[in-house]
Amino acid sequence: MKIDGFSFSAVEAGIRYNDRLDLGLMVCEKPCPTAGVFTTNQVKAAPVLLDIERLQKGVARAILVNSGCANACTGEKGMETARLTGKMVADLLHIPEDHVLLSSTGVIGEQLNINAFENNSKKLVASLGPENFRKVALAIMTTDTVMKTAQTNVKIGDTNVKIVGMAKGSGMIMPDMATMLSFIFTDAKINPVELKKILLDSVKKTLNRVSVDGDTSTNDMTIIMAGGTAANNIIDGDNGTGRQQFLRGLESVLRDLALQIVRDGEGATKTITIKVEQAKCSDDAEKMARTIANSSLVKTAFFGEDANWGRILMAMGRSGVIFSPEKVDISFDDIPIVRNGVAVGESAEESAGEVLKKKSFTVNVNLHDGVSCEEVYTCDFSIDYVKINADYRS
Amino acid sequence: MKIDGFSFSAVEAGIRYNDRLDLGLMVCEKPCPTAGVFTTNQVKAAPVLLDIERLQKGVARAILVNSGCANACTGEKGMETARLTGKMVADLLHIPEDHVLLSSTGVIGEQLNINAFENNSKKLVASLGPENFRKVALAIMTTDTVMKTAQTNVKIGDTNVKIVGMAKGSGMIMPDMATMLSFIFTDAKINPVELKKILLDSVKKTLNRVSVDGDTSTNDMTIIMAGGTAANNIIDGDNGTGRQQFLRGLESVLRDLALQIVRDGEGATKTITIKVEQAKCSDDAEKMARTIANSSLVKTAFFGEDANWGRILMAMGRSGVIFSPEKVDISFDDIPIVRNGVAVGESAEESAGEVLKKKSFTVNVNLHDGVSCEEVYTCDFSIDYVKINADYRS
Repeated sequence: MKIDGFSFSAVEAGIRYNDRLDLGLMVCEKPCPTAGVFTTNQVKAAPVLLDIERLQKGVARAILVNSGCANACTGEKGMETARLTGKMVADLLHIPEDHVLLSSTGVIGEQLNINAFENNSKKLVASLGPENFRKVALAIMTTDTVMKTAQTNVKIGDTNVKIVGMAKGSGMIMPDMATMLSFIFTDAKINPVELKKILLDSVKKTLNRVSVDGDTSTNDMTIIMAGGTAANNIIDGDNGTGRQQFLRGLESVLRDLALQIVRDGEGATKTITIKVEQAKCSDDAEKMARTIANSSLVKTAFFGEDANWGRILMAMGRSGVIFSPEKVDISFDDIPIVRNGVAVGESAEESAGEVLKKKSFTVNVNLHDGVSCEEVYTCDFSIDYVKINADYRS
Repeated sequence: MKIDGFSFSAVEAGIRYNDRLDLGLMVCEKPCPTAGVFTTNQVKAAPVLLDIERLQKGVARAILVNSGCANACTGEKGMETARLTGKMVADLLHIPEDHVLLSSTGVIGEQLNINAFENNSKKLVASLGPENFRKVALAIMTTDTVMKTAQTNVKIGDTNVKIVGMAKGSGMIMPDMATMLSFIFTDAKINPVELKKILLDSVKKTLNRVSVDGDTSTNDMTIIMAGGTAANNIIDGDNGTGRQQFLRGLESVLRDLALQIVRDGEGATKTITIKVEQAKCSDDAEKMARTIANSSLVKTAFFGEDANWGRILMAMGRSGVIFSPEKVDISFDDIPIVRNGVAVGESAEESAGEVLKKKSFTVNVNLHDGVSCEEVYTCDFSIDYVKINADYRS
């Protein structure tokens, strides 16, 4: 996986564990339009605070990322460490300090070991190359069991542009545990203000649909850098068609990554799409889908392959959305299990039980109350989830 | 455990399982002031809907309760069954149908087996006696591992009055899985309007502190019946001191039951009090305490006996409460672990780790932002929680 205009590298820096890639660098050949979306958690990690500041101008050149330590809740010392690690790389690359973005994931509350950066920055910069994209995708993993990358080509006018992305995140099962990082690169020429708008729009419908509003971690971030080496007509406010094409392409890459994250959810054995149809408005549909997707009772029932639709109705009932329980239909894939708020019958429950044995299925909820439809992606809630999170630091 | 003016009975009706008490009846010797607090879930079980209607007059005489089936999401048929079961008992007791309250707990979405009631109502009424309080407390259990009862004596003027209560509920670990039933009886003379107000006030500070606002099940209810056989001056708007005494007594019984419910939380190995101090206002303190108490990441860390305070700060950050992370202190019991938003040090974390090995401890969060303080009761999140809820129906 390569993208014109960018080079990558990753090394084993021993930040938390030895013998694994844990420090990565992504560099554009020149300063380029860059946009980011960051955690809405009030407690923001040092790299998040720095990046928000540095991205005000919409331009950057490099991203330095580490796993093993989140550099969150580390106070002024953590900010200073983040700044210093960025400066090391900036100096070696001969670029301004504020063109380097920082990103961290791992344990909260511990200071970042600056020696790991001092000992490895040179090697990191020296090994930059267009072919190392996947090495960085490996370096950002924590409890992830698989590397997550995605790519697409988009036609802007007559010109092909490319969008490639990587992500990490395996804690999206429950709303409050996610550290989701993703880095997207494109060779498209694009206005920085437009880039930011397009990123916000597409994250809303993709990566944000595997988590819950406001339930982000201290370190979540999605950054996109647009190298601009492609020969497309610049994507800006005047290029409506180009904008639309690019947005669709970016959404497909982000949705691909989002689904990979759900599939790799901590302890997850199944991927479930929760679809709420015929709601009064989009907000209602989304809110209800999220409440179902985040109910531990619903998710443990999925793990137990139990077509326990009563728990789904119960979660709907506490979602805050006004609806008529007696009008609700529920189906698992195409098997109707609830009609007008009551059970279709025992044989339906048996067939639905078969659906739940699948690795991936959709729960369709129809409110018969309007025309809005939204979906959210989630996974089941397993014994391994608890094991992973009870033992995470040991 | 007895209470003047009331008689109780419970039988094995085979509603879901054989060889266990699952049908209970509680009867006052005459119609008496009765008040209830019911689930705020929009999807309300049939017995809840009936009781809300019947309690509008503030008077009742009997409560018929079953475990094994929630009679929730059962449509008009479920309502009819609830009405019929109540009528059977009303006829046998020669009392008006609307003086009988209904309560159910168990699986959602299945119709209540009316035969179980037809076959057992006579026996249930025939075996009524003042000594059977504990038998009903056993009959209402589902995944509870222990029976939950509490009592206290209160002085109203020179007169002793008694308050006794029973509760069931073992799914308070996570907000959306609770079916919490509790039935309280007193011999106090009390005005029905005042009874309702006092019940609301005391539930707010006790039973509602082990769950989350709006995150109640389809069947939750707390009912209090005041037999009025005691010789106290009636508790009403004019009897301020008596009201205060009674409120305190009721709160102590409800808090006692609430803590028993947390202690018996599904799969729970520890009971934790989350205390938020020096918040700007009570609402902030409560909201933040609830967010911490319901974070799966925090709760799995408790299960793992890991003093992972970073997860607590992260949960605080997503609570929606505005605060200054750099002013936060956190301690586990009396061991400070975070000061001014950063770690106190490794030795503190070790000592805090010792606290986490205890069966019961308090997490103190100080925002240094005001004078309000609120606490919430919770438990840890274990492997057994998932097992219980994946297998519940099988």
